[in-house]
Amino acid sequence: MRFHWLLAALLVPGMGMAAEGMWTLDNLPKAKMQAEYGFTPTDAWIKRTMLGSARIAGGCSASFVSKDGLVMTNHHCASECLDQRSTATKNLIQDGFLAKRREEELSCPEIELNRLEQITDVTDQVKSATAGLDGAAFKSAQNAIKAKLTSACVGNDKETVRCDVVDLYHGGQYQVYKYHRFQDTRLVWAPEKAAAFFGGDPDNFNFPRYDLDITMLRAYEGGKPAKIENYFPFSKNGAEEGELVFVTGQPGSTQRQLTVSQLDTLRDVTLVNTLLRLAEMRGVLEQYSKSSPEAARNAEHMLFGVENGYKALRGRLTTLQDPALMKQKQDEETALRKYVAQQPALQAKIGGAWDEIAAAQQVYRQIEAPYGMIEGGRGFNSKYFSYARALVRGAAERAKPNGERLPEYADAKLPEVEQELFSTAPVYPEFEKVMLGLSFTKMREILGADDAFVKRVLGKQSPDQLSAALIDHTKLGDPAVRKALWQGGREAILKSDDPFIKMELALDPPARAIRTRYEKEVESVQQKNSELIAQARFAQQGTSTYPDATFTLRLSYGEVKGWKEGDKQIAPFTTIGGAFERDTGADPFALPASWHAVKDKLNLAQRYDLVTTNDIIGGNSGSPMINRNGEIVGLIFDGNIHSLGGAFWYDPRFNRSIAVHSGAILETLDKVYGGSALKQEILAH
Amino acid sequence: MRFHWLLAALLVPGMGMAAEGMWTLDNLPKAKMQAEYGFTPTDAWIKRTMLGSARIAGGCSASFVSKDGLVMTNHHCASECLDQRSTATKNLIQDGFLAKRREEELSCPEIELNRLEQITDVTDQVKSATAGLDGAAFKSAQNAIKAKLTSACVGNDKETVRCDVVDLYHGGQYQVYKYHRFQDTRLVWAPEKAAAFFGGDPDNFNFPRYDLDITMLRAYEGGKPAKIENYFPFSKNGAEEGELVFVTGQPGSTQRQLTVSQLDTLRDVTLVNTLLRLAEMRGVLEQYSKSSPEAARNAEHMLFGVENGYKALRGRLTTLQDPALMKQKQDEETALRKYVAQQPALQAKIGGAWDEIAAAQQVYRQIEAPYGMIEGGRGFNSKYFSYARALVRGAAERAKPNGERLPEYADAKLPEVEQELFSTAPVYPEFEKVMLGLSFTKMREILGADDAFVKRVLGKQSPDQLSAALIDHTKLGDPAVRKALWQGGREAILKSDDPFIKMELALDPPARAIRTRYEKEVESVQQKNSELIAQARFAQQGTSTYPDATFTLRLSYGEVKGWKEGDKQIAPFTTIGGAFERDTGADPFALPASWHAVKDKLNLAQRYDLVTTNDIIGGNSGSPMINRNGEIVGLIFDGNIHSLGGAFWYDPRFNRSIAVHSGAILETLDKVYGGSALKQEILAH
Repeated sequence: MRFHWLLAALLVPGMGMAAEGMWTLDNLPKAKMQAEYGFTPTDAWIKRTMLGSARIAGGCSASFVSKDGLVMTNHHCASECLDQRSTATKNLIQDGFLAKRREEELSCPEIELNRLEQITDVTDQVKSATAGLDGAAFKSAQNAIKAKLTSACVGNDKETVRCDVVDLYHGGQYQVYKYHRFQDTRLVWAPEKAAAFFGGDPDNFNFPRYDLDITMLRAYEGGKPAKIENYFPFSKNGAEEGELVFVTGQPGSTQRQLTVSQLDTLRDVTLVNTLLRLAEMRGVLEQYSKSSPEAARNAEHMLFGVENGYKALRGRLTTLQDPALMKQKQDEETALRKYVAQQPALQAKIGGAWDEIAAAQQVYRQIEAPYGMIEGGRGFNSKYFSYARALVRGAAERAKPNGERLPEYADAKLPEVEQELFSTAPVYPEFEKVMLGLSFTKMREILGADDAFVKRVLGKQSPDQLSAALIDHTKLGDPAVRKALWQGGREAILKSDDPFIKMELALDPPARAIRTRYEKEVESVQQKNSELIAQARFAQQGTSTYPDATFTLRLSYGEVKGWKEGDKQIAPFTTIGGAFERDTGADPFALPASWHAVKDKLNLAQRYDLVTTNDIIGGNSGSPMINRNGEIVGLIFDGNIHSLGGAFWYDPRFNRSIAVHSGAILETLDKVYGGSALKQEILAH
Repeated sequence: MRFHWLLAALLVPGMGMAAEGMWTLDNLPKAKMQAEYGFTPTDAWIKRTMLGSARIAGGCSASFVSKDGLVMTNHHCASECLDQRSTATKNLIQDGFLAKRREEELSCPEIELNRLEQITDVTDQVKSATAGLDGAAFKSAQNAIKAKLTSACVGNDKETVRCDVVDLYHGGQYQVYKYHRFQDTRLVWAPEKAAAFFGGDPDNFNFPRYDLDITMLRAYEGGKPAKIENYFPFSKNGAEEGELVFVTGQPGSTQRQLTVSQLDTLRDVTLVNTLLRLAEMRGVLEQYSKSSPEAARNAEHMLFGVENGYKALRGRLTTLQDPALMKQKQDEETALRKYVAQQPALQAKIGGAWDEIAAAQQVYRQIEAPYGMIEGGRGFNSKYFSYARALVRGAAERAKPNGERLPEYADAKLPEVEQELFSTAPVYPEFEKVMLGLSFTKMREILGADDAFVKRVLGKQSPDQLSAALIDHTKLGDPAVRKALWQGGREAILKSDDPFIKMELALDPPARAIRTRYEKEVESVQQKNSELIAQARFAQQGTSTYPDATFTLRLSYGEVKGWKEGDKQIAPFTTIGGAFERDTGADPFALPASWHAVKDKLNLAQRYDLVTTNDIIGGNSGSPMINRNGEIVGLIFDGNIHSLGGAFWYDPRFNRSIAVHSGAILETLDKVYGGSALKQEILAH
């Protein structure tokens, strides 16, 4: 599934193949589009597309589909809300949900929606703020200028305005993205998981596919449905094979312009360690889920995320193990270094950048384990710990001037932090005990039983003993307690006797120390030298390329097209009838009763899912797929198995994105789900 | 832990560093030993050493330590027996065991003990049988000559004689190893796991260490304790720092002479896939163990094996990711190829061997998943399935002439097959359901839900449904049923309506098909060309090197010596007092009550565990460590974390083996465990 959940963004631009590219909306390859498809987007088309698109801040894409704030995204993008609004006796994931009237729409406690409204280039300001600096000084200066720029952009409207400094081309450009922020979003419609995720993990990242991976939300403002001027109408018939289609969404991160030493680190360290961690978590979650239906419900959201992340990263590892990929990357790097070396001025300024990044990789390999465990929180995998960290650090950081804070506590970021902290979503203590106990165990395994930090955390207790003791005595599961601690600031924190707060207070200094080392010796070295390499690329290639994905709005153009798998031609469409044929009656291949009940009334020939050549990646989940008229023809929810290598390169022969066909949404919305009013709203253009 | 459980042997010899080498007893480096330590073993010394040493066929080493058949090995080597002789109310793993009288000794249903008695070179016979052959014909001819040679060696004494053809130097030499076979072994003494495996997984492969990893068994013949002429007496004081010590045991497999393409495959495919599988199994087993004490008991043996294997293979992967290792391997290979290329006769015969092996790797990468799942049984991880396969294949194979059978059903192998099949060890159906359901799930994930074989296995059932249906209806948990089917041969098998038998009958043809492809296109290509490379090595280096480990008897010489870990000097000995200092009271760092009860009486300064420079690997677990007088000074049970790279190279700076000190065994045997009669038996020399 194409959501952006597990990997932090890294970064840089590549050679253009047909359909390749995640283009920023201020730099579309209009000439190429015209040449290949006879279509040149007008400024009005681009603006409408930008304003009709949306981002779910947690890691997905979305779109506005009615004037009354109706928002379309994937089921798996809204499943956290479905989960949070479920109870032991009412399971919205299993049963689905439809609000018959507006008053029945259920608020989602942790979904923030962003709509991009303005892009401002700030490259000069950012670069001049860090000019001549290194290490910790570079990082501090960059944090300070970013905090200043975002605060200035937000002004006094932080409830409705969000501004982020976006780093494009790995430091080649810095831009301020100004968003309209919606924090009141509500659940309107979701099918059952058995329909949304038919085929489950086995079919994930595969095609042919039969998923109705959709959820409708509604954005509210001032307690009323938001009034939306720019939204996407639905196409009547969808797109035909070969037709030009666009995906407008938020690809999370790609690593197409990393240096070879960075790719080596990713392959040998980051991916292997992450996969091994996920594999064991998966085993624990699977077996925990079998202990009771309620346990299964509590673990479901995390299990899905783990399985999805595992499959996605496994595909990336396989790609990085492909000698052809590594050879291409090595050749590109050699060519660029040669280009630089031939020009003395460039060579003097940039020539050393690759080796500096390679040296930083060696440092990273040494500190990856403690950095991830202690500062990255891998050793403390629990919601309670996340709350404690936000409360403790938030109190310390808010006491500082905006420009001197850790960037995640800068003024412009606080509304998101507060939304999470004050969320009324339930926390399941028994489930949290299992996950926290596991992560303490892994911390002891990976850092070693004699590591000073580990001994400080565990004392004489076993991981499970400590986990249970902490969770049995904390009050942080109560949002009112969290709110009081947040509002009470440093004084309240220091006075708190909550065991998680006390633990985090004790552990914050070593966590900050390892973070500082990482920032100084790895991150700032990479950032500074990546900026130089980006300059070399601009010099070599101009700005006719696209930047690596950064979870910001991008447009991909492509066409409806199958592919050849070995000797077998894969057709671009599936049908609703095909879903019934694939039904075995056993989860995850069992269509829900609601489908079987109306099978006679359904148009079994209706196209269901489709594949296109659009270049997307995790984070694009929930993106609208539109035609040249700006009408919705599909809803992106996945890529095929070959698309997993898309993190590193785009192969037009095999890389395909997968969408729900617009016609299948309309066909099932009223016939299966009784959503005729909703259908009317969507079609009322 | 140094037992040999997870990886099949692969292959070839290296450059000698001090203490490096797992030497066959007929080719000891006597001149080197004399030069380095002033010691030359006499023929009598070598013979005594050979006859005092033993192998546990399941994957460990052992030694004879009294004239009445007393056998010393590790607790973790005998823990399967402890597990099998436990019940829901009597847990020998947790509580330990001591037979006060011979009649109380408990028979171990699946332990076979082997004592090497004779080595015969058969290189010419084996090579002439396969001369000029390729692929399937090569493999068949090799199977046939091996079956013939082992049958001739065993003669009519298959209950007490076992013969194996051993492939040394990856086809450089073939030898017949003739063993005395003991199938009646009984449990005499085992400490509690809390003492044997103090520190558990966190301390595994680490030092300083405080483990009493010992179990005493007794070999019986004709219902009486076996009379043993050659056994090792215990040293009174153990060995001092710097003293020459020997390890005589059965290292399972090393990969020091693989080609670079084989190492690449191991790194990218075998190790990564195995680790990911083990990580998920581990998560399932951990969580399953938490469901009840009985579940924990049922899962304990497998969980230990999985955790131990995981840590060992993780270390191997890290080593293979080390550019220094790969560069050394590449340099060695380049030098050998250059040496061959300079001699036209050699080049004509051998020059293509590396490329042929590399081509076979490409085939292996394609078929690794189905081969492992279907023929390797990874998709059917259950004792019931293992029984069904042995019964179905055994019936088919025994109907063929000895030389035409799958080699695991050759006459000389049948006693081991029968011991497992007729074993009275309990099978736990609920536990088996979990593991089989998981392996079906993984098979569907890795081969794909649309794979023809997967569809044939699962039909319309989910993995867990099928697993439960099979296990609820099988009778193969009953050893009498298995014995009847084995004795009934093909007719009984074809008439059986046991669901596992029926499944295996249906799946055997595709399993044999993928095996045949593997043998033809991978294994025989590797074997044939490895023989050629071995010839090149002999030409270049002579036979002054040692062969890769093959789970056959080897001698390692080295000395008692710590090492430098960063800035810190690690001393070679720990003490019993140190164990009490490390005790936290929480498992796995809680010494048992039996120790605390007698703490006052124990000599806390007694040396407990020690490290030496001996070159060992998995399979050496349970090896006696002896001094130049042939006296036991320790009991090998592990290697340090650096020793995990020993699969690929030996680094004398860091690689250390870990043993229990002989003095600690004697100190605790009577004071903690009341085993004074046993102590007397050991000391009665």
